[in-house]
Amino acid sequence: MNGKLKGNMLIAQGGGPTAVINRSLAGAVRRGSRFSRVEGIYGALNGVSGIINERMVDLSAVTAGNLEDIASSPASALLSTRDKPDNEYCEKIFRVLEAHNIRFFFYIGGNDSSDTLRIVKEYADNEGYEMRAVHIPKTVDNDLVKNDHTPGYPSAARFVAEAFSGLDLDNRSLPGVYIAVVMGRHAGFLTAAGELARRSPDDGPHLIYLPERSFSVSGFLRDVEEVYKKHGRCVVAVSEGIQEDGVPVAAKLAENVEKDAHGNIQLSGSGSLGDMLKDHIKSNTSIGRVRADTFGYLQRSFRGCVSEVDSREAEEAGESAVIFGVEQDKDGSVTIKRTGDYAVSYELSALEDIAAKTKVMPEEFINSSGNGVNPAFREYLRPLLGCSFTPGGARISAPRIAPILSRS
Amino acid sequence: MNGKLKGNMLIAQGGGPTAVINRSLAGAVRRGSRFSRVEGIYGALNGVSGIINERMVDLSAVTAGNLEDIASSPASALLSTRDKPDNEYCEKIFRVLEAHNIRFFFYIGGNDSSDTLRIVKEYADNEGYEMRAVHIPKTVDNDLVKNDHTPGYPSAARFVAEAFSGLDLDNRSLPGVYIAVVMGRHAGFLTAAGELARRSPDDGPHLIYLPERSFSVSGFLRDVEEVYKKHGRCVVAVSEGIQEDGVPVAAKLAENVEKDAHGNIQLSGSGSLGDMLKDHIKSNTSIGRVRADTFGYLQRSFRGCVSEVDSREAEEAGESAVIFGVEQDKDGSVTIKRTGDYAVSYELSALEDIAAKTKVMPEEFINSSGNGVNPAFREYLRPLLGCSFTPGGARISAPRIAPILSRS
Repeated sequence: MNGKLKGNMLIAQGGGPTAVINRSLAGAVRRGSRFSRVEGIYGALNGVSGIINERMVDLSAVTAGNLEDIASSPASALLSTRDKPDNEYCEKIFRVLEAHNIRFFFYIGGNDSSDTLRIVKEYADNEGYEMRAVHIPKTVDNDLVKNDHTPGYPSAARFVAEAFSGLDLDNRSLPGVYIAVVMGRHAGFLTAAGELARRSPDDGPHLIYLPERSFSVSGFLRDVEEVYKKHGRCVVAVSEGIQEDGVPVAAKLAENVEKDAHGNIQLSGSGSLGDMLKDHIKSNTSIGRVRADTFGYLQRSFRGCVSEVDSREAEEAGESAVIFGVEQDKDGSVTIKRTGDYAVSYELSALEDIAAKTKVMPEEFINSSGNGVNPAFREYLRPLLGCSFTPGGARISAPRIAPILSRS
Repeated sequence: MNGKLKGNMLIAQGGGPTAVINRSLAGAVRRGSRFSRVEGIYGALNGVSGIINERMVDLSAVTAGNLEDIASSPASALLSTRDKPDNEYCEKIFRVLEAHNIRFFFYIGGNDSSDTLRIVKEYADNEGYEMRAVHIPKTVDNDLVKNDHTPGYPSAARFVAEAFSGLDLDNRSLPGVYIAVVMGRHAGFLTAAGELARRSPDDGPHLIYLPERSFSVSGFLRDVEEVYKKHGRCVVAVSEGIQEDGVPVAAKLAENVEKDAHGNIQLSGSGSLGDMLKDHIKSNTSIGRVRADTFGYLQRSFRGCVSEVDSREAEEAGESAVIFGVEQDKDGSVTIKRTGDYAVSYELSALEDIAAKTKVMPEEFINSSGNGVNPAFREYLRPLLGCSFTPGGARISAPRIAPILSRS
């Protein structure tokens, strides 16, 4: 199965960064440096944008210490891009790859980046230029099809679970309604991770709303009032992508809806959805203390709670890409399969099977009321968070002192 | 110096929780249990509110394991309150203390809680009821006078510094303007902590705005444009309490400004300040990508990045309170003094010296432009974050690949 192709290797990072995307970079660089057929290891700055502008660095010159420093840092060390190449853009990419004798092209990214890679690869094929192209998955949204999960998601999920563990205790201390808006445009995996913060039945988040189910503002109000009546407080996890009758609740608010180059509505980097939901509760109930936070970019960039499972898998995904592309002479997208409890293997899917497709939460993960998740989701996520994660909810276990003045 | 007072001890927690407030509770309970003169150790649920309603638990019954579980959890295990006792309320508190033979009263809280304790203590004195009252400081705002710093602040500061470390790398990956709103009504200590995320001169946060200096919306715009021109990006830390001409910028937005029982305007639990600043940049510059987050309640409740220095000091503050109150028969507020680099001692201040007073950032910590902090602040904060904290900013050090197609 040894390939014969010889030349330079290029690696790039695209889309939204994660806490472990540099692990995949390090894995690919370390593995790539073992092959004599890999002559140079280039890194494109700012993804495909760096390729067309010939802004590349020599990664073989990076010291082991620097590479490890990078590997343990969040965000894209090679910088990123939101560019979505059209045909003209793809031709430019190809000319640069050809000029630099790039024969192994690795792109770390989500489904948009996978689509970019597919287009570039097709262009190279049409031109008869021999090149291996392998996509290395990453996304905090966990929305790549064919993957059990994607690198970056477990650490972001751990941040969300850690966050709710503390926030639920905070809300218990000073009761009221607390809403946190979590990233997730179409897929609710990250929002659902709040479930893992719960240790006891009355721990929050008590309500979890996902983009997979149509959101009803009136139903939301009923749910909140019911929980508040029962527990005297209510902690809510809401996905930024929740929709009512097919229209994003967030988009209903914004007068000028900002869209990125992929035509996606800008949901993050604003507190408006949380504020609207908060105001709605304040206006329509008698609940006095209502607060809303939006976790925002902390979810994908926070250093302090990387899952060790995620970290290892991200590096292995990068290594596997080089094994597939260089050693096995194959194109495709590295795909994580769950093979045990807990064990994974890295397989290769066709680029077109991953590109521009979106996976959402399976039905069995969502409860019948559409305001929470089922135990099956907890079983799915638990091993991904790493063994150093424990749910919150510590509370004092002590007998009551008998009243003296108010006894009756 | 051994006191003679004998009876029950009561401990309560008030105001906004912190990540280490339960360490102070554990320290007080552990130390209190060593004295035979301390007959029972009671915990009031929901602060002073639990006292007047006789909602108390027997903390001497708590197991060592449960106490340690609590100690390492954020938020107030005894639950909290925002009640500010008036004279009638104070009389009720006194009647309960008297009925339960409470002779040692410890209240963990900020300057509002200290004021509450002062009033109750005065009431007891007026009634001729012998009781020791000791305030145990806590506040993420770090705004208690006479203290070098207060338990709770270092861990919240570490969260802010950790957060900016990752967020700056995220912003470097996908450049634009990023604004994060940080807690701090009158004092900018927590916002200023963003400075500790910086490792290299071009690391963010590039601009830091504090409530100690009048905020100018036009000056803000000039600052952002200047940084953006220089670095192609700009990361901003903004205190929720920033004011323009004495009026909170956040309050200018809200139609119905919510106030708590202390008459304070509700600043947290809303993304409106960040969103307004973001919209202002978008409307008045040509910068395309502008994002704003509000750190919100994560800052005081996040479990994952407690400072080990803060944790130890919070526990020692609780222990010291019992030593002062029970062993030394004194009233007052435990005060942290810095005695070395790095070392502290715990002293006792008069309750009236702490109560209802607010410390703000000293002049020498703030730069002359009012949009950043000086090295003196960095020196002040660095040891408080603990030795396991390192600033972010890891980046690839690699030579550029020479362009082929675009060489000229």
